[in-house]
Amino acid sequence: MEPQFVRLDAVRAFELAAGVSGRPLFGAGAMLNLIRFEPGATVPLHSHPHEQLGLVLEGMQALVVAGVVHELEPFDAYVLPGGIEHSAYCGPDGALVLDVFAPVRDDYRERWEQAS
Amino acid sequence: MEPQFVRLDAVRAFELAAGVSGRPLFGAGAMLNLIRFEPGATVPLHSHPHEQLGLVLEGMQALVVAGVVHELEPFDAYVLPGGIEHSAYCGPDGALVLDVFAPVRDDYRERWEQAS
Repeated sequence: MEPQFVRLDAVRAFELAAGVSGRPLFGAGAMLNLIRFEPGATVPLHSHPHEQLGLVLEGMQALVVAGVVHELEPFDAYVLPGGIEHSAYCGPDGALVLDVFAPVRDDYRERWEQAS
Repeated sequence: MEPQFVRLDAVRAFELAAGVSGRPLFGAGAMLNLIRFEPGATVPLHSHPHEQLGLVLEGMQALVVAGVVHELEPFDAYVLPGGIEHSAYCGPDGALVLDVFAPVRDDYRERWEQAS
């Protein structure tokens, strides 16, 4: 793979959930995904085998893990082990979050490639 | 591994190079590292087998790869394949950058654990 340099907030977006868009950058073993939550948007309870790390950039993202709410603000970071069920919602102003997945999520790559 | 939630800019820092500090968060297969460049600081030419991704958060970070300078500003993101030689420097106001490595850099973990 060649080095890549991209303006991440100008990458084509795909829909993660209603009101939640992602702008991805795919490496070989890991990927970035710049997530925008519109106010009131939520990500329902789900899990994936990929490890997920992330950093909140703007607004508030709440991650709900094992029934415990973690309200995260700018510079709050996290690691969710693969396979753990989680859901998410945002504060009244929405949120901007950088997610990281390892390994790469091929399901996201397919959805992103199909997004027009 | 349990889920982790941390205020990344309050994590204990370790020195990456003169005037360049890192605040890490270690997952199982990937890690975050919040890098602060003081004005004028540089990272000399080096390489590592780990893939490196990242996002500039504040200021300007220049990555020099194969002799080509890539001047990166907020929301510019990158992927550097493992094993590629690169160096870095910052703009006059320094820079704040989120680096991501996969797999985890055990050399960073050791240096961070030894940082007082």
